[in-house]
Amino acid sequence: MIAQHPDEFQVVALAAGSNVEEMIRQVKQFKPKLVSMATQEAAEAVQREAGTNVKVLWGEEGLLEVATHPEGTFVMSALVGSRGLPPTLAAIRAGKKIGLANKETLVTAGHIVTQAAQEANVPVIPVDSEHSAIFQCLNGERRQDVRRIILTASGGAFRDWSRDQLREATVEKALQHPNWSMGAKVTIDSATLMNKGLEVIEAHWLFQLPYEQIDVIIHPQSIIHSMVEFVDGAVMAQLGTPDMKVPIQYSLTFPKRLPLRTPALDLIALSRLDFRAPDLQRFPCLKMAYEAGRSGGTMPTVLNAANEVAVECFLKGKLSFLSIEEIVERALSTHNPVQNPTLEEIEEADQWARKFAQDCAESMASMT
Amino acid sequence: MIAQHPDEFQVVALAAGSNVEEMIRQVKQFKPKLVSMATQEAAEAVQREAGTNVKVLWGEEGLLEVATHPEGTFVMSALVGSRGLPPTLAAIRAGKKIGLANKETLVTAGHIVTQAAQEANVPVIPVDSEHSAIFQCLNGERRQDVRRIILTASGGAFRDWSRDQLREATVEKALQHPNWSMGAKVTIDSATLMNKGLEVIEAHWLFQLPYEQIDVIIHPQSIIHSMVEFVDGAVMAQLGTPDMKVPIQYSLTFPKRLPLRTPALDLIALSRLDFRAPDLQRFPCLKMAYEAGRSGGTMPTVLNAANEVAVECFLKGKLSFLSIEEIVERALSTHNPVQNPTLEEIEEADQWARKFAQDCAESMASMT
Repeated sequence: MIAQHPDEFQVVALAAGSNVEEMIRQVKQFKPKLVSMATQEAAEAVQREAGTNVKVLWGEEGLLEVATHPEGTFVMSALVGSRGLPPTLAAIRAGKKIGLANKETLVTAGHIVTQAAQEANVPVIPVDSEHSAIFQCLNGERRQDVRRIILTASGGAFRDWSRDQLREATVEKALQHPNWSMGAKVTIDSATLMNKGLEVIEAHWLFQLPYEQIDVIIHPQSIIHSMVEFVDGAVMAQLGTPDMKVPIQYSLTFPKRLPLRTPALDLIALSRLDFRAPDLQRFPCLKMAYEAGRSGGTMPTVLNAANEVAVECFLKGKLSFLSIEEIVERALSTHNPVQNPTLEEIEEADQWARKFAQDCAESMASMT
Repeated sequence: MIAQHPDEFQVVALAAGSNVEEMIRQVKQFKPKLVSMATQEAAEAVQREAGTNVKVLWGEEGLLEVATHPEGTFVMSALVGSRGLPPTLAAIRAGKKIGLANKETLVTAGHIVTQAAQEANVPVIPVDSEHSAIFQCLNGERRQDVRRIILTASGGAFRDWSRDQLREATVEKALQHPNWSMGAKVTIDSATLMNKGLEVIEAHWLFQLPYEQIDVIIHPQSIIHSMVEFVDGAVMAQLGTPDMKVPIQYSLTFPKRLPLRTPALDLIALSRLDFRAPDLQRFPCLKMAYEAGRSGGTMPTVLNAANEVAVECFLKGKLSFLSIEEIVERALSTHNPVQNPTLEEIEEADQWARKFAQDCAESMASMT
């Protein structure tokens, strides 16, 4: 996208993990002033190839410098996991406009992030296709005119499976997402509907709406990316072919749009769009996410951390598909939630839930 | 709507035809300062009942005074036919915000009306559900970011009929519109797709887009009221149950919304939305409307006037259903268009087309 519009954007700083080659390629293409890698070793490898025009840092300090570089005006927060939180908060407090693709930031610390964004008066623009859709539907509207938002869900790989079938679900089957090509973790979360549950919690913070005003509808084709119903009964929806390029670019261009070479939506070729209610009996993860969101405090952190561990165990073949929901349920019912937690308390709850889920998974695995 | 929100709106002036009783009721409810009726007789009847607190006028002069009342800030232009044009223009030139429900205003004099609105810097807010949908989709967007607009069409009563079946179509069958309950004329126009053709011409003027950027899609359920596709591939759509109260109120509240007691959209109950391409072979009126729009000048006036006469003859049982398109086609191919016509030239073309269509209808009727 940035390569398509060199006059509109300038890359000031970049952060990556350990992919040295790709970073060198991007340094050559975009000529940033600062980059950061996960490790000192990777940083030194980049520095050797990229020359002295670019400053190369590493680790958490590097991330914080990238996020707050004085020449940056927009920060795309797309790190995976809770590591994304400190640099995102630092960028917000430095007054940067935020493109938010990091789920944990809002799920675990929504109250801290949204308050920081309000205090710094910076927009947090969602990059997830569902939240971007809602953000687009709200463009030009007053928040008080919203009756409810409606997140669409493909229903995942097991949309039409019975509980009996789910008991036998394999990793291979769970990874066959109908519409989007994503990482393994998110694809499993789609199959359990946990992904949608985490999105409900994100939406709660992003759009400052109570959970009663956030609905989920199963829409197998993933063409309507989400909707907003207003107090006058009008519903605005954002549609498109499933292509992450659109919401990513929108977060950069908002409130403008820029041309993007993406396949046009062809409703005539599609011929129909379907809808049905989500089945909370078959997919209790969505119900648990609503409950964790309503309980608030550290509960969403525990939901997310326990789920991450359980999904990892499932992907490694150590647990059955339905053990995922069981582990999450046990973690939530065991946890003593802390309301209005600090970052440290969030981190503690996260650690506790990971350990709890790991122990749980091991005892369940040893039983089989 | 106004009765539901007495703090938001004040009715300053009202105009009606000959329904004295209804006007008296509305005068008592809304206490306008000025009303106008079609005839002196009706005006005197209203004045006798309504008392001396309201000024009662009649005829075209009455309409003009209603449209330009100094205390009015918003004028809802909902007269039927070309009589709506002079008061609408007067209201625009007096700087009133316009709610436009009168089709002829834009179809016949789009170039004059849009220029006047630009000069007076007043917004023209469409009331038609399709155009209101597009207007809502454009809220907060830049016009230059629009790739195309997509008007949805139910397809009308004869959506699935073959040309052979259409030859035998009766008035009774043509009046069975699948989704909307409307007047006879509009319902027939839905069955021929002429209604959609006139909406394409209106959209051309309202949104200042070339015809290449205006598409029509058949959507039998009429739930998506229309859509806008942007340059980045994102499509915004406005949905709802078919209820004219929503776009009517929106024209009054824009850019805000106000609560409206209307049945909420239930996509789960609907379960599916369908789409297909319009068939211009079976329904050539839509094709003729595009052609008349592209030719411009007085051609849309002729299209509209010839169609009005032909539909009237069909409704009276004097002509077959397929004669409607034939009469419109003959009028268009016979007419010598005037480019950039004045209001007088538009009126002349209108008169010519009505006479031509009437003669045509009579000769066709006498042949059968």
